[in-house]
Amino acid sequence: MDPGRRRGAHVKPPFRFACVTSQVLAPTIPSVTGRRCLVTGGLGFIGSNLALALARGGADVTVVDAGYPRHGANPANLDSPDGAGIRRLRADLSDPAVRPLLEGVEIVFNLAGQVSHVDSMSDPVFDLDVNTRSQVAFLEALRWASPAATVVYTSTRQLFGRPQYLPVDEEHPVSPVDVNGITKHAAEQFHLLYRERYGLGATVVRLTNVFGPRQRLRDDFQGFLPIFVRHALLGQPISLFGDGSQERDCLYVDDVVDCLVRAAITPDAAGEIFTVGNDEHLSLRRIAELIVEAAGSGTVELVPWPPDRDAIDIGSYFGDSSKAKRMLGWTPEVTFAAGIARTVDFYRAHLERYL
Amino acid sequence: MDPGRRRGAHVKPPFRFACVTSQVLAPTIPSVTGRRCLVTGGLGFIGSNLALALARGGADVTVVDAGYPRHGANPANLDSPDGAGIRRLRADLSDPAVRPLLEGVEIVFNLAGQVSHVDSMSDPVFDLDVNTRSQVAFLEALRWASPAATVVYTSTRQLFGRPQYLPVDEEHPVSPVDVNGITKHAAEQFHLLYRERYGLGATVVRLTNVFGPRQRLRDDFQGFLPIFVRHALLGQPISLFGDGSQERDCLYVDDVVDCLVRAAITPDAAGEIFTVGNDEHLSLRRIAELIVEAAGSGTVELVPWPPDRDAIDIGSYFGDSSKAKRMLGWTPEVTFAAGIARTVDFYRAHLERYL
Repeated sequence: MDPGRRRGAHVKPPFRFACVTSQVLAPTIPSVTGRRCLVTGGLGFIGSNLALALARGGADVTVVDAGYPRHGANPANLDSPDGAGIRRLRADLSDPAVRPLLEGVEIVFNLAGQVSHVDSMSDPVFDLDVNTRSQVAFLEALRWASPAATVVYTSTRQLFGRPQYLPVDEEHPVSPVDVNGITKHAAEQFHLLYRERYGLGATVVRLTNVFGPRQRLRDDFQGFLPIFVRHALLGQPISLFGDGSQERDCLYVDDVVDCLVRAAITPDAAGEIFTVGNDEHLSLRRIAELIVEAAGSGTVELVPWPPDRDAIDIGSYFGDSSKAKRMLGWTPEVTFAAGIARTVDFYRAHLERYL
Repeated sequence: MDPGRRRGAHVKPPFRFACVTSQVLAPTIPSVTGRRCLVTGGLGFIGSNLALALARGGADVTVVDAGYPRHGANPANLDSPDGAGIRRLRADLSDPAVRPLLEGVEIVFNLAGQVSHVDSMSDPVFDLDVNTRSQVAFLEALRWASPAATVVYTSTRQLFGRPQYLPVDEEHPVSPVDVNGITKHAAEQFHLLYRERYGLGATVVRLTNVFGPRQRLRDDFQGFLPIFVRHALLGQPISLFGDGSQERDCLYVDDVVDCLVRAAITPDAAGEIFTVGNDEHLSLRRIAELIVEAAGSGTVELVPWPPDRDAIDIGSYFGDSSKAKRMLGWTPEVTFAAGIARTVDFYRAHLERYL
């Protein structure tokens, strides 16, 4: 690592969000300033970036996070001046201690969940408990406490399984290939049912792979991007199966934050599902190369596919975000190269708290 | 009620099943004789009829049933000479006490579940616990104890919601309109995932409305058919909204038992979903009239639709059973009129144990 670059190179907080709410969005769309927001999973990767952005935008922010050891929560994630005014509760969403937070809440960004596909297979009941059961208990509490609240639920491209066509849009069949896909899909359906039956303003956003600051790096539970970043930062080889030609449409976390806020403040979004990806499609090999370039360390190595290739290879994946662009006025703005540079800068300044 | 008809008019046990296994099915398909079968929900309506049929066919039968108060379990259901050799365990499927039953089991008929749509909305977490969480715990135990077992999971037409076309087949989109539809669908997906990943011989059968002996009559949790039967037997009016012209494809329970056994002993059925209905489509009004005729008591009355008609009217429903007929060699054989006559005879002899 370059010590000069590391010292004081902490990337500035992304003020683009504040900019978006005050200028880019039409004035007819209310901003989040002064609104009571709850971020579940708010100590995790996307949740903490979102909570900080909301706080910068002048929202009244509370985060709730169970802090399960193998999940994404990291107290360091809110350790910044922007996070000073954020209230925090450590609790599972099914915990009665969550209920008092729900009175008067206007917007729930519902990001709490188990995301490891491997863990979902090794402990399927726990995955169901966290990803579905706790969500049902939470929705049930919310509909009584704040029936007019808006809930933006983050789901995953993983429930599509191996894509039947590309780019994947909202009409693509759901065909989970692991426990996590089933439990996240069930939670989606509960959100939409609570919209249909009880009028909660529920919106589902199915995200592609996301990267950026504050993602858990220390192990291999959170998808391939943090693994690649860790290997590069530690000067280790990034191993790719075959020629690494499968494509992905990674999103920088600030673009995801922007999308989730737009989903929350666009009234027509209630009851809708959005498939959210990126028009920049890169091969896994190119992604790894760009990470190594940004880090200035690590290497990319190609290794043969294991014999059970069919069991693990979903081929290329990228999503069609037309609906999100049309209905939410959203466009991803950060290229992979730009986003990974910011990401590397962040981890160079804080690596010891993420390993 | 006609006292002469009531006395001794208990319909004879349906020996058609024994007949089917020994004669109608091709000899290349192994029968259930001597095979270790587990029936979950085996004190309930379909489960008990199935367990008795299996016992008559010479199978080694164990039933497990949680006996939840508002569910279908009734100890009277196995109180017949045919049921004498059936082992019984009162336990939820997630109970560790179930595990010893799984060693060496060859066929699991997995019928345990919560079926009330109203109850699923009033206590969604319990519905999820019973219909999905306990099923996952059960599948996880089964795949370790008996990885070569066959599991036939009974699901419901309810997960289709309001039909988008008729007759409904396996390609019809799943679009649950209540908690029960979501939790049953998730359980289906878990069965198919355990087939895909671990090789369990899992088959899903989505049933239409079923009627016959041993169904819970005492309250209104189990669908419209037992309500109609109870009202008629008690000489009360059966109320229908509007003109009662919506059609249904009711199945007599013996035809369902036949279908489930065929699904279990047809090797190609593993990994498949079957939509199982009846080619005999009757309007709700005709169904009610036939029940009143068979009972010799009760009346049919038409009442106006309530103002929120759209919230409760799914219109007509009937399924396309072509796939089950083709792959399982199954055909429903009992007309509604014949089935309801047997049903009324059964309840005349045993009514006090079902009210």
